[in-house]
Amino acid sequence: MTSTDPSDATPAADDLAARLRRELGPEAVPTVHEARYRGDRAVPGAADLRFVLVLPRDVAGVQTALRVAHETGTPVVPRGGGSGPSGGATAVAGGIVLGLEHLSAIREIDPLDEVAVVGAGALTADLSAALAPHGFFYAPDPASATLSTIGGNIATNAGGLHCAKYGVTRESVLGLEAVLADGTLLRTGHRSIKGVTGLDLTQLLIGSEGTLAIIVAATVRIRPLPVARRTVLARFTSSVGAAAGVGAITRSPVRPAATELIDAGALADIEAHTGATMADGDGAVLLLELDGYGVDEQTADLLDVLTGAGGSVTVIEDEAEAERLWELRRTSRAAGAGRARLGEDVAVPKSHLAELLTELEAIGRRHGVRTSAVAHAGDGNLHPAFSLPGVPEDPAGQLPAPILDAADELVRAALELGGTISGEHGIGTAKQQWLDLELSPASRGLQRRLKDAFDPQHLLNPGKAL
Amino acid sequence: MTSTDPSDATPAADDLAARLRRELGPEAVPTVHEARYRGDRAVPGAADLRFVLVLPRDVAGVQTALRVAHETGTPVVPRGGGSGPSGGATAVAGGIVLGLEHLSAIREIDPLDEVAVVGAGALTADLSAALAPHGFFYAPDPASATLSTIGGNIATNAGGLHCAKYGVTRESVLGLEAVLADGTLLRTGHRSIKGVTGLDLTQLLIGSEGTLAIIVAATVRIRPLPVARRTVLARFTSSVGAAAGVGAITRSPVRPAATELIDAGALADIEAHTGATMADGDGAVLLLELDGYGVDEQTADLLDVLTGAGGSVTVIEDEAEAERLWELRRTSRAAGAGRARLGEDVAVPKSHLAELLTELEAIGRRHGVRTSAVAHAGDGNLHPAFSLPGVPEDPAGQLPAPILDAADELVRAALELGGTISGEHGIGTAKQQWLDLELSPASRGLQRRLKDAFDPQHLLNPGKAL
Repeated sequence: MTSTDPSDATPAADDLAARLRRELGPEAVPTVHEARYRGDRAVPGAADLRFVLVLPRDVAGVQTALRVAHETGTPVVPRGGGSGPSGGATAVAGGIVLGLEHLSAIREIDPLDEVAVVGAGALTADLSAALAPHGFFYAPDPASATLSTIGGNIATNAGGLHCAKYGVTRESVLGLEAVLADGTLLRTGHRSIKGVTGLDLTQLLIGSEGTLAIIVAATVRIRPLPVARRTVLARFTSSVGAAAGVGAITRSPVRPAATELIDAGALADIEAHTGATMADGDGAVLLLELDGYGVDEQTADLLDVLTGAGGSVTVIEDEAEAERLWELRRTSRAAGAGRARLGEDVAVPKSHLAELLTELEAIGRRHGVRTSAVAHAGDGNLHPAFSLPGVPEDPAGQLPAPILDAADELVRAALELGGTISGEHGIGTAKQQWLDLELSPASRGLQRRLKDAFDPQHLLNPGKAL
Repeated sequence: MTSTDPSDATPAADDLAARLRRELGPEAVPTVHEARYRGDRAVPGAADLRFVLVLPRDVAGVQTALRVAHETGTPVVPRGGGSGPSGGATAVAGGIVLGLEHLSAIREIDPLDEVAVVGAGALTADLSAALAPHGFFYAPDPASATLSTIGGNIATNAGGLHCAKYGVTRESVLGLEAVLADGTLLRTGHRSIKGVTGLDLTQLLIGSEGTLAIIVAATVRIRPLPVARRTVLARFTSSVGAAAGVGAITRSPVRPAATELIDAGALADIEAHTGATMADGDGAVLLLELDGYGVDEQTADLLDVLTGAGGSVTVIEDEAEAERLWELRRTSRAAGAGRARLGEDVAVPKSHLAELLTELEAIGRRHGVRTSAVAHAGDGNLHPAFSLPGVPEDPAGQLPAPILDAADELVRAALELGGTISGEHGIGTAKQQWLDLELSPASRGLQRRLKDAFDPQHLLNPGKAL
C-alpha cells in the first residue's frame, strides 16, 4: 500500500494532531497514512475524508488518546485489522482513527489454566499459531483470521467455521481490559473458567462494535488440539438437498466440528477462480470436518446419515487433499472479486435453511441478479452473494440497484423465517437500515440508554452499530 | 410446608394487595402463604417480614404486577424455585415477592432447530426430562436442578457438574422474554444459533439476579444425548494429590464431561450420612464422567493420565454402580445438615486449585473450624464448607464468628490466587461484603449506571447483587 492521504488538513485537526503528537510522541501520530485507514473491507470511506490517525504503542497510549478525545469532544473510531465487512471501522470526519495494531503482544499462554492473555491488536491466526506448540488452539476461526485481530473479533463477536461445535468468540472470552470514553482503564471478568460476580460487563462489551469502550486486551479460553481430524465431502443434486443433509445430521448424534454448505453458484465461482471442480452441474456440496475421539465411529455414522439423505459421500483420508478442499472453501470469498458484488450475512433457525436457499434463488431470478451462497450450515448462518457479472466493481463501493434490492429482500426473508439480519459480521453502518425490522422500540431504547451509561458524549464509534 | 404468614399486614400493604387482587384475580395474590416465600436456602428472611406474594398465571400477569409496582413505587423480588444459596430471592419489607412458578410451561421443543422455548418457572430437571424422548438434553445441570427453575438458573448464570465441557447456563441461552420495570415486555436475542444484532441484552440479563428485568421465558439451546457415557473413580492420598490429577488431565487431550473432586472432609460427611465409603483414611477422590464418541479411547487415555499422577483408578462399567456414586456426590450437600455450617462458592484459575485446598485446611486449623470441600475441579470451582460439629444450626441463619472468619479468609485467598468470590452461586445479599475486593470502582460505577438505565426507580430486587 502507498501513503496517499494527509492525515489531517483542517485547523482543528492540526491542533488535535499537534496535541496528540506532544502527548504520545510523533511516531504514534503519523503525518501521512495509507488509504486503507479510511475504511474497512465493505465501506472504504470517501477519499476526501479527513481524520487523525493514532497508533498508540501501549495501553497507556490508548488511555491518553481517549482522554484527549474526551476533553476535546473528538469522535474516536477503533480499528483492528480493518477486515470488517460492515463498515464498523470506517473513519468519521474530523475524528480520530485509533489503530490498535501495536498492541499485538501475546502476553501469556498458560496451558494449565487453559487461558491466554492477548493484546487486542494480535492477529487471530497468530494466536492459534503460538498455541500450537503447547498442544492448544483458540477456537474462534473467522475466515479473516489471518487479517483480523482478537480485539476486532471480540468487538464484533466474530464467528467462523467451527462455531457450531466450539461456540462463537463470546464463548472463548473470559475477561477484558478496555479503555472507557474518559480514558479510564476497566478490567472485566476473570481468569477462572467460571465467575458470576456482578453484571457481566465482559459479555456486554463483546459484540458492541467499539461503541461502549475500546478493548485493548483479552483473557481468552484455549482448548486442547483434537486427537484426530477427518474431512468428509458430500455431493448433493441441489442446495436444498444439501440442506436436507444438514437436517439429517441434526437428527443424529454426530456433531461435526464444521459443516460448510457450498451452493452451485459458489462452486462455479470457485471453479472459475481456481479451475477446481468440487461437484458436477447444478449440484451443491457439504464439506465437513469431524474431530476428537472416536473419529472413525463418527465418520461411519456421518456416512450413514448423509448417504441416507441422498448424498454421494467421499471420506478424505489424505491430509493434503483435505487441506486443498478447505482452501477451496476459503477461496469462495475471493472468487467474485472485480465485479459489482455484495456479500451478505444472515442466520436462520437451522431447519429453515432449505427455505432460505430456495428463496435466494427466486430473488436472484426476480431481480436478474446472479446469486451464490456458502453457509456455516451447522448453525444456520448463510453468506449469500449478489453480483452482476457484466458490471465492474465501483472503487467507491457504490452498488447497482438490483443488487441492493435483492439483498434487501433476502434479509427480509431471513427475518420472516425467524432469523437475524447478521449472524456474525456485525451491523456497522452497512446493516443499520434493517435494525428496526429486528429490534423492538423497547430494545432500541434500552440500547441507547446503555450507550449513554458508557459514553455520554457519544464519542466512541459514532454512527455505528446502534 | 404449612401456611404460617399473613401475606400483608400493614395498611399500605393492604391497599397494594387489594389493587393487585382486583387486577390479577384473588387466586394470584394469596392472603396467606408458606414461610418459604420469605427467603431462599441461605437467607430465610425474618419471621416478621411483611410483603405481598404475587403468583401471576401468565406473562401478562407479570406485566400487570410490574406496572402496579412501578406506579406505586413498590420493590419487587422475583422468585424461581427459592433454592438459591446467596439470598437473591429473600423478600424485601413492604415489597412484592413475584413467584414465577405458574409460568412453567415448556412451550416448544424443536430438535431440528436445536432449541426449546420454556417458561421461567419450569424446573430445570423437568426440561431435561421432556427432552430425553427426543434424544436431546439441556446441558446446564446445577445440583439444584430438581428444585431450581430455568428462570432462576438464568438470573444467576447457574453452573453445575458438566460446565467444563458444555458451558454454564449463559452458553445455552439464545434469547429471552423479560418484563421491564415499567411492565413493558422485552424480547431479546434470536432463535438462530448465531446472531450479533445490537448490544447483547440477552447476555447482560443473564446473571443479573433480577436487578435489571424479570425473565419470564427463554429460548435455550439443546444438545443431542451423548452416544455413550463412562464413570471413572480415582482415589488419591490427599486432596492436593487429586488436584494434581486434574492438572495432569489438563495437560492431556482428554476433557471429561464432569470432573468432581471430593476431599477427605466431604467423604467423611458422605460416609456419616449414608454409610458408604468412597476412599480410605485421609484420601480424596476424583469422580469423573466421560461421554460421547470414542469413550473407550477416552477411558484408556484417562486411566494412563490418572495412574501416572498417582491415582488408584477404577473404571465403573456397571450403570447402577455409577449412578450410586453420582448420587453419593450429590448427597454431600445434604450431609452436613443440622449443624452450624456455611457453604461457599469460589473459583480460581485451574492450576491454583491445589494451593486453595491447602489453604482451606490451614484456615480450618487456624479457626478451629471443620472444613470439607467438593469442587467442580474441571473448571476450578470450589465449594468449601465450614462447620462447628458441636453447634446446632440456628433457625434464623445466624452463624458463629469462627465460621464467618474462616469463610472470609478463604474468599480472600481465592482472590489472591487470581480467582473470584462466586463461581456460580451469585452475590445476592450473602456475598456483597466482598464485592469491592473483586470489582474496581470503575466497574461498580458502570454497573450502577446500567442499573439506572434499566430500573431508574431501583425497584427490581433492591439490595441484591450490585
